Amino acid sequence: MELLQPKGVRDFPPEEKILRDKVIALLKEQFERYGFNPLETPVIERYEILSAKYAGGTEILKETFRFMDQGERELGLRYDLTVPLARYVAMNPNVKLPFKRYAIGTVYRDGPIKLGRYREFYQCDCDIVGANSAAADAQCIQVALGVFTKLGMPFTIQYNNVALLKTILLRDGAPEERLLDAMLILDKLKKIGEEGVVAELEAAGITAACVRRIIAIAQLGTNDERIAAIAESYGELPELSRIRQLLVLVPDEKVSFDPSLSRGLAYYTGIVFETYLLDSSITSSVSGGGRYDRMIGEFVGRPDDYPAVGISFGLEPITEALKQLAKQQDKTVVKAYVVPIRTPVEANQLTQELRDAGINADTDIMERGISKNLDYASMLGIPYVVFVGRKELDQGLYKLKDMRSGEETMLAKSDLLERLKQA
Amino acid sequence: MELLQPKGVRDFPPEEKILRDKVIALLKEQFERYGFNPLETPVIERYEILSAKYAGGTEILKETFRFMDQGERELGLRYDLTVPLARYVAMNPNVKLPFKRYAIGTVYRDGPIKLGRYREFYQCDCDIVGANSAAADAQCIQVALGVFTKLGMPFTIQYNNVALLKTILLRDGAPEERLLDAMLILDKLKKIGEEGVVAELEAAGITAACVRRIIAIAQLGTNDERIAAIAESYGELPELSRIRQLLVLVPDEKVSFDPSLSRGLAYYTGIVFETYLLDSSITSSVSGGGRYDRMIGEFVGRPDDYPAVGISFGLEPITEALKQLAKQQDKTVVKAYVVPIRTPVEANQLTQELRDAGINADTDIMERGISKNLDYASMLGIPYVVFVGRKELDQGLYKLKDMRSGEETMLAKSDLLERLKQA
Repeated sequence: MELLQPKGVRDFPPEEKILRDKVIALLKEQFERYGFNPLETPVIERYEILSAKYAGGTEILKETFRFMDQGERELGLRYDLTVPLARYVAMNPNVKLPFKRYAIGTVYRDGPIKLGRYREFYQCDCDIVGANSAAADAQCIQVALGVFTKLGMPFTIQYNNVALLKTILLRDGAPEERLLDAMLILDKLKKIGEEGVVAELEAAGITAACVRRIIAIAQLGTNDERIAAIAESYGELPELSRIRQLLVLVPDEKVSFDPSLSRGLAYYTGIVFETYLLDSSITSSVSGGGRYDRMIGEFVGRPDDYPAVGISFGLEPITEALKQLAKQQDKTVVKAYVVPIRTPVEANQLTQELRDAGINADTDIMERGISKNLDYASMLGIPYVVFVGRKELDQGLYKLKDMRSGEETMLAKSDLLERLKQA
Repeated sequence: MELLQPKGVRDFPPEEKILRDKVIALLKEQFERYGFNPLETPVIERYEILSAKYAGGTEILKETFRFMDQGERELGLRYDLTVPLARYVAMNPNVKLPFKRYAIGTVYRDGPIKLGRYREFYQCDCDIVGANSAAADAQCIQVALGVFTKLGMPFTIQYNNVALLKTILLRDGAPEERLLDAMLILDKLKKIGEEGVVAELEAAGITAACVRRIIAIAQLGTNDERIAAIAESYGELPELSRIRQLLVLVPDEKVSFDPSLSRGLAYYTGIVFETYLLDSSITSSVSGGGRYDRMIGEFVGRPDDYPAVGISFGLEPITEALKQLAKQQDKTVVKAYVVPIRTPVEANQLTQELRDAGINADTDIMERGISKNLDYASMLGIPYVVFVGRKELDQGLYKLKDMRSGEETMLAKSDLLERLKQA
């Protein structure tokens, strides 16, 4: 038997999982802070749902794990959290709108393995179903502001409106039937630069003129200047007033309107956004999303009734960025390790008292000697060790060792508890 | 297209998921309090691992979802969290022992659907690998004590040692080759009573005498009395000294030694335990486990090197019990809903200030009138509504409405924040 995981999936040992759990807890906290409620749907869905006309599309279906249950019903592993949301909304017509839900869970893609691409990975999504307002758009940006501010990483959020972008590209010469191609190429602007985009457009037989003006406007200094330049060049487009509303609802400094921002996905209908970290080796987007006003409605069979906007956070790049920021990575949740010196019962009792005081504590269960216990605590990276010796016990004292500094202190129990609680 | 989930799986809408998340958070907190570290393994495993000789066995394999990836490798959905733990330990020979890990995740069984049996459900396990001591056994019991004390539900933990039970059944006349059958029948004692067990044993051609004495001893009043009675009837069996050690390590009052406790699973080798709720309609075990000293080692290929003991908590029965205890179930995480009265920008700003103060807050994004907003807050069960009116704003005041009592209060912003923080 070959002892291996399936290709493209990973184990997360404690030193990885502790950090991932912190990111997940922070996302959950912020989603709830902004009024999103948790919804959990199963990992397995009927294949009929996953392959529905308005679901993920043919490319994603090629990468869908597919199987049958004992009753020969066709099933598949979910490839995103949006199709299950659409199914849930469709099955629960009495759900109160706006329906603000978040979901944090694994999704599956049976695709080629590349660096940073996995067959099982997390999506962390919050979506607002049933509200077609700039205020709803703004809430998604506000959640991103909340998350990245809490994470303490410098960032910038960029947004645009794909309906606005389409109008501009058409006016500047993109042929209507090549609009999505032009947007896909423009989507590479950050990677390949303006001249790269121009070259690709020309190679594709699309006039490069269609992007020149919008890229120039995107380079102006302030949100107000960019909006004014668009109004001056193209007149009062209806989407501009929504963007003006956004400016009022979200702070200007970390959120910039980038009229050249493009997302290649066909289902976006309004605002789109991306978050990038500053001063980080993580250059890909760490969060992104947008408005998709027809997708859930098409699924339900009433295309106009379920406008939606959502934002997704990348657990992998955020965790990677935090890992690089952190000086060292926690390998254990244990804060104090209690070493008995021929005092197994008393050591066990003290460990229990530490736990009752809210301190993550552990003790020897191997009947090891002092030095082996110290090695174990040290290899696991446990920050404090407490020695329980007979003589010291008689005086009501415990020896606390700070494993990082090596400093040792004799303490009465109440002082010991206080010190560890505050550490 | 039929809008349905697969058979046997469930959606958890906010009113269910909020409570489940609370139980999961409490389990996570207690597992860490007792020095267990998180390990996450994938939902998909190689079928070869799931079907290994020392894995779950043939009955469970019949219920295993099985499929192939694009490279035609055979995969399956995990049916428990123990086989993945064994694989992880086998793949990571440098893991430090004792390895104390917890895992909370979904597992899958393609079996018949009955009341309370699902095809996707959670297991919440903590296990200690590498320690073969009464102290390790005690830690599992201590975690259960920690969890159910925190949950605030009256409970009793019962334990036994299957090696001890086997010796006793043999001495009292059970034929060696029918030992597992006898234990399976004895396992039904709580359900069918002593006479039921006797009848089933006789029907199976096993002498009922083998259980009479042990059931009588199990009915004695205290742990000490039961241990003394076993020593008197059967002499000093080696497992008795371990049970005496446990009595020292775990408090006597909520933990009772029940020498008739039996678990039918073949892989247990030492202590076994079960937790039952008292005064509850949930009569099934809410947590259980035991020592399985050979399973992981057999998996690794060194049967004696990985003694293990673990305990599993049932998310479904615990959540169900809490649901019955709670007067009402939270339908939302939102604590305050801000209603603008022709003050959209100011209402949005106040909502943001509430969030910055750590209060889960939401506001209108539908441009609804006052009464529709009140209906929405009321239907979702949001406990507080704040009105932001123009006149009141000029005086620096906000109207807070307690949705349960109906009481309305005019408050300055700092008092409003304070009141909501404390609510």
